[in-house]
Amino acid sequence: MELWFSEYQTKNTKLSFRVKEVLYTKQSKFQNISVIETEDFGRVLALDDTVMLTTKDEFVYHEMISHVPLLTHGNASRVLVIGGGDGGTIREILKHPVKEAHLVEIDREVIETSKEYFPSVSCGLSDPRVKIFCEDGIEFVKKNKGYDIVIIDSTDPIGPAVGLFSEEFYKDVFLALNENGIMVAQTETPILFGDLIKRIYNDMSSVFHYTNLYSAVIPTYPGAFWTFTMGSKTINPISHETSVEPFFKTKYYNKKLHRSYFILPPFVKDIISE
Amino acid sequence: MELWFSEYQTKNTKLSFRVKEVLYTKQSKFQNISVIETEDFGRVLALDDTVMLTTKDEFVYHEMISHVPLLTHGNASRVLVIGGGDGGTIREILKHPVKEAHLVEIDREVIETSKEYFPSVSCGLSDPRVKIFCEDGIEFVKKNKGYDIVIIDSTDPIGPAVGLFSEEFYKDVFLALNENGIMVAQTETPILFGDLIKRIYNDMSSVFHYTNLYSAVIPTYPGAFWTFTMGSKTINPISHETSVEPFFKTKYYNKKLHRSYFILPPFVKDIISE
Repeated sequence: MELWFSEYQTKNTKLSFRVKEVLYTKQSKFQNISVIETEDFGRVLALDDTVMLTTKDEFVYHEMISHVPLLTHGNASRVLVIGGGDGGTIREILKHPVKEAHLVEIDREVIETSKEYFPSVSCGLSDPRVKIFCEDGIEFVKKNKGYDIVIIDSTDPIGPAVGLFSEEFYKDVFLALNENGIMVAQTETPILFGDLIKRIYNDMSSVFHYTNLYSAVIPTYPGAFWTFTMGSKTINPISHETSVEPFFKTKYYNKKLHRSYFILPPFVKDIISE
Repeated sequence: MELWFSEYQTKNTKLSFRVKEVLYTKQSKFQNISVIETEDFGRVLALDDTVMLTTKDEFVYHEMISHVPLLTHGNASRVLVIGGGDGGTIREILKHPVKEAHLVEIDREVIETSKEYFPSVSCGLSDPRVKIFCEDGIEFVKKNKGYDIVIIDSTDPIGPAVGLFSEEFYKDVFLALNENGIMVAQTETPILFGDLIKRIYNDMSSVFHYTNLYSAVIPTYPGAFWTFTMGSKTINPISHETSVEPFFKTKYYNKKLHRSYFILPPFVKDIISE
């Protein structure tokens, strides 16, 4: 049997993976969760038929959403991740000398699925520095404060994640952050969703003193040219030279490129400054 | 009717575009040439069902294969492009103060198709500085010399382009180059074809004093993380500060990132240094 898993990256573009085996598929309270073994990209975690990660390229996303803010800050002790139930972002955060890493994932079944099917991704979730909260991230940041870094490791801005892409939410995150706090959100691709990126940039700019985009190549995400938007209270990521050297091995993040990540191609600069 | 054009990026991964209209499809002496109007990526040129360019993202490839070598060199007068019958690379080269740009495209019908269906890409082909040769690039470089830059703007290393990915060919290109000459080839993605990239790197290294990879994100190419391999006779692209400023507008290339383009993520460095 010839079996393919296809993601509609948009209504008009599909990425399809030849399937070795469908390992798991279940409707949770919030979404469909599927685990698929593919030929080219290893094991795939899909939520509502959207690729969250593949074991082939997840290192790019997880390293870049974690190391860029943590090494920009240079002295993060308490870190909060909203979303990211697979554990990949937590795994990377734990490579830094943090004291506490909190994970707020609305769907407990994502965490359970990752623990069972993605041990190389979820491996940090049982670390004693990690505390997991299965609740709504929007409500959580209203009640919990004192973080150095907040990372929004969300799904796309449809369904349960819509509220994570709003000015109100960024205001609450601002208040949940310490004096030199930094937030980062995954913010989709300028190739296909320029309007969204501009809106997020404007919203975050109205809350934070410094707002900067950086990018990374994620082959299995729509458009592949992926952005992260960083809001910072006091540290300017462009001029600030962090004193902390990564003392761990990375596969995508390169310390020599730290400042370059924030230098955008003109077409992206045009989108946010229009 | 729901119409899709799918490229098998590998045997096991497909990228599919919803089709507005198939504008042209014809078997030339060398390959099938098709022009498709898509919903998300504008007009697509496909050779043997492989995407050569889309009007949405072609600027990345054409800027990066041209501006990086030309601005590294800083004083190029005669430039040769092998392949690239669509004219996109020539269009970018002509933004520099070159005296002559030669295009060697084996398939005249690619040029004709681009002239008819991709005026924004082929627009430079009628410039008086351009000379077009419809012949085999491998034979051409054996007989024609005196170039400052040679750009290998080829299809994938299957079919007619195989010979353009060989040490013998790089030796002939070396001899066709002037004293400070530089060659660049498009060299696929390390996400899926690490072995190929390593072989090309080794082959080019055995011919040129300096061999360096650089990369760019091309959403519609397999793996999206695309590499170019540059062989240079005397100019070290890492330490050399070119004095020439781009006096033209770009969409992807950013002069501030010129040196950063050559700094690779560790996973790519590992592939070529294994």
